[in-house]
Amino acid sequence: MPKTYKLTYFNLRAKGEPIRLILAYGNIQYEDNRIEFSDWPALKPKTPFGQLPVLEVDGKPLAQSNAIARFLAKQCNLMPATDWEQAQADELADLANDIFTMTRPVNLVLVRDDAKRQSAIPEVLASLAPLLDKVEARLLANSHGWLVGNKISWVDLLFFATTEFCIKLLGKDAFSKYPKQQALFKKIKEMPQIAAYLIKRKDTMM
Amino acid sequence: MPKTYKLTYFNLRAKGEPIRLILAYGNIQYEDNRIEFSDWPALKPKTPFGQLPVLEVDGKPLAQSNAIARFLAKQCNLMPATDWEQAQADELADLANDIFTMTRPVNLVLVRDDAKRQSAIPEVLASLAPLLDKVEARLLANSHGWLVGNKISWVDLLFFATTEFCIKLLGKDAFSKYPKQQALFKKIKEMPQIAAYLIKRKDTMM
Repeated sequence: MPKTYKLTYFNLRAKGEPIRLILAYGNIQYEDNRIEFSDWPALKPKTPFGQLPVLEVDGKPLAQSNAIARFLAKQCNLMPATDWEQAQADELADLANDIFTMTRPVNLVLVRDDAKRQSAIPEVLASLAPLLDKVEARLLANSHGWLVGNKISWVDLLFFATTEFCIKLLGKDAFSKYPKQQALFKKIKEMPQIAAYLIKRKDTMM
Repeated sequence: MPKTYKLTYFNLRAKGEPIRLILAYGNIQYEDNRIEFSDWPALKPKTPFGQLPVLEVDGKPLAQSNAIARFLAKQCNLMPATDWEQAQADELADLANDIFTMTRPVNLVLVRDDAKRQSAIPEVLASLAPLLDKVEARLLANSHGWLVGNKISWVDLLFFATTEFCIKLLGKDAFSKYPKQQALFKKIKEMPQIAAYLIKRKDTMM
């Protein structure tokens, strides 16, 4: 088990929040290093691939949000049990990444013009619908109420963050057609270690 | 060990080729189902997330190229040994995905206008340079000549495919500044099971 963790990301949820949720679930202490956008140009060339988030594990850097999340899942008993279930978590994690990318037209950091962002919402909702339908179908097919297998895994926390992120950008009705995703969201929100984390968490732009 | 594998993708290398290389390395028999673009609209809604490639494992579908590659790596002795090395492979696999996305302005399927594509090459090469510099640095730091750890892993085959793909789109000099990546490419190309696969492989648009 590594001794120290330091997560560097912007003062946003976005791609950092799934990692923070996994760390909260696992009761892992870490330095939550939130940088200002003005600090980024100087830091960028020092990161593994010019991107954030970066997790330093005993001082060694690891990049790419899903690689970080999967690594921490192994430390936090959040890996699905079998190779096949792990693969299903992996495909959903890459899907969450696709969903994140598809929200670009309404991204509060990328699009500063509020009218432009508001007018893009219906188009983004329409593009996400076929993917969210598939996620809902996956939950409907699993009587355990988790995305993969019969216990919580890292990809459930990843989708909790993705759902929260989409609601922030697209409005509170973004998941109104998806009762199973709402139920998963509620179940995770009420887990003691997640609830404790959410209470002390500060609001950010996104 | 699953009994049957069926890989469905377009008649392209692109996102399908890392998977085919891993299957070739592992001497795994599979159905190489290459579909025409005209078949895609009817097939799309039947796939897990409206995307290809899809690998059917004993009839059950798995999507997302890196999820498929990682799953097969476990069947083919291509997983790095430790959690940390596995995480390093994961971050590089996601980087390969980023590289793939950054070649969009010269993608032969997306951009049919040859002059437009040619004029975009310098810009794409410039955008890739910082990332390829980081990959080269990673190889320079590892005396074993592999991207991660002291043996070949799935991410070496993934970068073999990525290198080949970039050369096809950007010209044969795309990796002239990267001797370590060239050496890795040559080493993989000469592995018996890979060489046997490459000899019988047909050329495709990309």
